Amino acid sequence: SNEGKEHENYFGLTLLDRRSDKRTDSKWLSKKQSHPTTVYILFYNLSPLVTLGRGIESSQQPEVELCRLYHKDVEQCMNQTEEGILIFLGVELQFHMNQLAACNGRVLQEDEEDGLVAWFALSVDSASAEKFKEKHENCYFLHPPMPALLQLPEKEAGVVAQARSVLAWHNRYRFCPTCGSTTKIEEGGYKKTCLKEDCPSLQGVHNTSYPRVDPVVIMQVIHPDGNHCLLGRQKRFPPGMFTCLAGFVEPGETIEDAVRREVEEEAGIKVGHVQYVSCQPWPMPSSLMIGCLAVAVSTEIKVDKNEIEDARWFTREQVVEVIIKGNQRSFFVPPSQAIAHQLIKYWIGMNANL
Amino acid sequence: SNEGKEHENYFGLTLLDRRSDKRTDSKWLSKKQSHPTTVYILFYNLSPLVTLGRGIESSQQPEVELCRLYHKDVEQCMNQTEEGILIFLGVELQFHMNQLAACNGRVLQEDEEDGLVAWFALSVDSASAEKFKEKHENCYFLHPPMPALLQLPEKEAGVVAQARSVLAWHNRYRFCPTCGSTTKIEEGGYKKTCLKEDCPSLQGVHNTSYPRVDPVVIMQVIHPDGNHCLLGRQKRFPPGMFTCLAGFVEPGETIEDAVRREVEEEAGIKVGHVQYVSCQPWPMPSSLMIGCLAVAVSTEIKVDKNEIEDARWFTREQVVEVIIKGNQRSFFVPPSQAIAHQLIKYWIGMNANL
Ligand SMILES: Nc1ncnc2c1ncn2[C@@H]1O[C@H](COP(=O)(O)O)[C@@H](O)[C@H]1O
Ligand SMILES: Nc1ncnc2c1ncn2[C@@H]1O[C@H](COP(=O)(O)O)[C@@H](O)[C@H]1O
Repeated sequence: SNEGKEHENYFGLTLLDRRSDKRTDSKWLSKKQSHPTTVYILFYNLSPLVTLGRGIESSQQPEVELCRLYHKDVEQCMNQTEEGILIFLGVELQFHMNQLAACNGRVLQEDEEDGLVAWFALSVDSASAEKFKEKHENCYFLHPPMPALLQLPEKEAGVVAQARSVLAWHNRYRFCPTCGSTTKIEEGGYKKTCLKEDCPSLQGVHNTSYPRVDPVVIMQVIHPDGNHCLLGRQKRFPPGMFTCLAGFVEPGETIEDAVRREVEEEAGIKVGHVQYVSCQPWPMPSSLMIGCLAVAVSTEIKVDKNEIEDARWFTREQVVEVIIKGNQRSFFVPPSQAIAHQLIKYWIGMNANL
Repeated sequence: SNEGKEHENYFGLTLLDRRSDKRTDSKWLSKKQSHPTTVYILFYNLSPLVTLGRGIESSQQPEVELCRLYHKDVEQCMNQTEEGILIFLGVELQFHMNQLAACNGRVLQEDEEDGLVAWFALSVDSASAEKFKEKHENCYFLHPPMPALLQLPEKEAGVVAQARSVLAWHNRYRFCPTCGSTTKIEEGGYKKTCLKEDCPSLQGVHNTSYPRVDPVVIMQVIHPDGNHCLLGRQKRFPPGMFTCLAGFVEPGETIEDAVRREVEEEAGIKVGHVQYVSCQPWPMPSSLMIGCLAVAVSTEIKVDKNEIEDARWFTREQVVEVIIKGNQRSFFVPPSQAIAHQLIKYWIGMNANL
């Protein structure tokens, strides 16, 4: 299902087909949990267990890979801990083909092996985390997650994005926000239900039961002359780093208006036309970055010091120097895994005159 | 700030500039609350108080308008009820200009009248709701909200979308999801903070404190021949209604992959290229509908009966008959206020051969 994709951002590719239909098939889920081919990835404190990858020599940055564990590795831990949260992530995409070939068009019997390789994420407590590190010598939990997660192979990054977002939801949403009671986890980790019998959240369908995804707009703002772009920096950034402006979409707001509002709030620049470019899941904890080009209709910058520290117009040549030629002496931008980098690059590739 | 907009959907226009900078200015907020020009719109049970609009004779559908109340109208009720929730919505957009003209470039003194017309949404309990209906004879609460909200003037609809989404959040998220304690409302209604001193939600910034916006993909799926589109219907739809497929974006998923997943899940159709068209806030309770065109790469429909009742390929001619000629004998689609309608229309306007 990766056909026809033009703009692919980090965290946006995956190894898995989510197979959401299986989330309510508890018999299938429990069979897969103990199946020998099933892959488990481990999280402690929202950080995945990784090992040094094979690509280490060839690439500049040290590359890591997910530790793929099996039922035999996690069995003991799953029985012991109460804290452990298990999320069904999906089945390996490539096995669709193998499976179709294997059964030759024949419909499988209910109990027949379907050949699908299931993946689960398991979140463990600190005691279990310690044990895993001892047992699997080359493995460690990637912490802090940023920028460490950006070392994962692209398709594993997407799996981690999915798992980390859902686990972060369970971590922060343990109690029913409607009545304050405890909740139980259902549907392979994608639903949580209030345990109080007469809670209003049990009547009808409510978003309180489903994981949260926060839409964020991130925009490459283009000067009316088409040859400058607006980049800003927050106080907490490393010195010299500038990037695209961004902000959360508010309730009752369109993507395009969120872009206009944020650019005006943060930099005092008025934006006219807005064009969607591409998006990126950002699992910190569960954002959907919606990347746009935005054409400014004013030019005088007024920085809101509460939100950002600085914002400036950069020329196309300055940006080419940094992004294409890699000369980061005067300033630098986020790495290629960030959608901001891709948006800036996309603009460089556009005609100089809009 | 409405410049450069091409695709405008219902709920996507507004009368207001949100002025989020004022949310933390409690002095300004409290001054505006009792200011005589300040407009209050009322909600009971997430339904706005409306009156029959002036457009009634000219239009086919009965049109309604928001009841614009003033401080003197709501003062008593605000003091009496504990239940009442007050949301700062923003200031009237047109007044920017007037204000700039009035002060002639001069910077205002701190206590000087700024001329901004503030809007607040006030949610009242059933006792107060009854009193308002008695006092304001021609006013009533629009219930059930759908399809009644679609009668509002376009720019009022956007104000209601904002207010209703934020109020629905307060309605369903009264307790801290991290620890189950009670919470308090801050920042003009856009933030809620746990009242338990050592709650982990008080360390750092967490989405538990901010209103929820649920991204949903909605897509016009185009047959590989370019001359048919895929429309489906749910059991709960009125007989004969077909519309675009749609579904919630999941954690760690891109917009484009959510489109592909939902179309394959619901109708068994594989999608290749996906193109963003436009979006629409949908305050039921707080969705952001992200409208796309999706090009199918397979044609055999397999309906998932758990999700939808039917899905079919419709020819361009069939759709033109319904949307442009208004002949709804064989089937019909949602009204023009729905983004689905606009997506279908957008496709009709495209070249026959993609
Ligand atoms: N944030 C959400 N709010 C409501 N339903 C959700 C959400 N996320 C996933 N769902 C699922 O989507 C279904 C409703 O979808 P729909 O029929 O499009 O309204 C529900 O039955 C849930 O299974
Ligand atoms: N869903 C959300 N999660 C976190 N912060 C939010 C959210 N919605 C609005 N905000 C605000 O956005 C600020 C963080 O924005 P940023 O610097 O882009 O991470 C916070 O201080 C909040 O005021």
